[in-house]
Amino acid sequence: MARFVVIGQTATASADFSLEDLAGSSGRLDVLLRCVRAALLYSHGVRRDVTVYLVLLAGPDAPRTLRFDGASAKYVRPDERPLATLAKKALGAERPVGARGFVERRHGIAVADGGLDAVVADLGPGRAFLLDESGDDIRGIADADLAGDPVFFIGDHLGVSASMRDRVLALGGRSIAVGPESLHSDDVVTLVTNELDRRRPRGAPAAGL
Amino acid sequence: MARFVVIGQTATASADFSLEDLAGSSGRLDVLLRCVRAALLYSHGVRRDVTVYLVLLAGPDAPRTLRFDGASAKYVRPDERPLATLAKKALGAERPVGARGFVERRHGIAVADGGLDAVVADLGPGRAFLLDESGDDIRGIADADLAGDPVFFIGDHLGVSASMRDRVLALGGRSIAVGPESLHSDDVVTLVTNELDRRRPRGAPAAGL
Repeated sequence: MARFVVIGQTATASADFSLEDLAGSSGRLDVLLRCVRAALLYSHGVRRDVTVYLVLLAGPDAPRTLRFDGASAKYVRPDERPLATLAKKALGAERPVGARGFVERRHGIAVADGGLDAVVADLGPGRAFLLDESGDDIRGIADADLAGDPVFFIGDHLGVSASMRDRVLALGGRSIAVGPESLHSDDVVTLVTNELDRRRPRGAPAAGL
Repeated sequence: MARFVVIGQTATASADFSLEDLAGSSGRLDVLLRCVRAALLYSHGVRRDVTVYLVLLAGPDAPRTLRFDGASAKYVRPDERPLATLAKKALGAERPVGARGFVERRHGIAVADGGLDAVVADLGPGRAFLLDESGDDIRGIADADLAGDPVFFIGDHLGVSASMRDRVLALGGRSIAVGPESLHSDDVVTLVTNELDRRRPRGAPAAGL
């Protein structure tokens, strides 16, 4: 199972953004939502073996984290507005008293209080990678290193902050790059996903089955 | 210069779609607009050496084609709603009497009557490729074949129709694939763009400069 963790430095952790001006009113939550499409959806439906975490570090309710699980996700569409509507409903739901960790709000969509700490507590074992233009080319990473349950940490439109970089590297994360240019976060997800698709043994069950 | 031609079999050629229900009201024009983001935008701005054609084959005004030129594009944002607003304005503008071919409507955004014929008349020379899951892996295509002004023809959420496939192959197009899975059109654009980025000689001007 692949996990993607997208760190939204300016993305709101509250539901009070406008669907009519998503980018302008949500601290660029749109950047993170496009990563959900890139990670979870392909032509045949939902990639059941992928989980995406959106770490929301801005606004009065921050930090909070949205988790989209491919295994149980329903109603995830590729276009931004319905994705934003799902996020808005999940973030707006009242949290049960005494709840700990991730609480499921919709099919396959859960919310936790906390940022990277909450994600790390939820992840379990798996090799960590930090997507970074100056890292090693992903095409040169050994199959064995990308196998299993890798976790990919990805920045937003501002990149990855120095403190976040230190934390991911302290988890044993390795810096990897997907190409020579600095790309949008969702393009990075697409390129990592393609590399994983290509490494999957022929005859292995397709990701969506 | 790279050119992408995305063929929208159900995408409306009229401006009468709703921004509140883009996917449902436009015949999945959202699929095509996401390709514009993937082709034209990266972290440093607009890729000036890329042109995208959206072939709109549905609705009473069809066929028509939208052209987005990276060289002169302004106000192209990554989120869907503003991209849809640009498309709506361009499609809604009255066509000058006697105009032929592509007519610019906004900075870098032009409209032509006609579908693939209008695109082919506009393209000029360049090697054609048809993106197709059963094609040759793009990673194995020679640098010389991808150099110059390649044109990549890509299907929509329904794929590429048999008649469209025959037309592209009749142009001398070669079938190529970007990986083992069937992907969304914008992911295909991202993967082709990454391959071109990787083939660009080191020290060559970055795409956006």
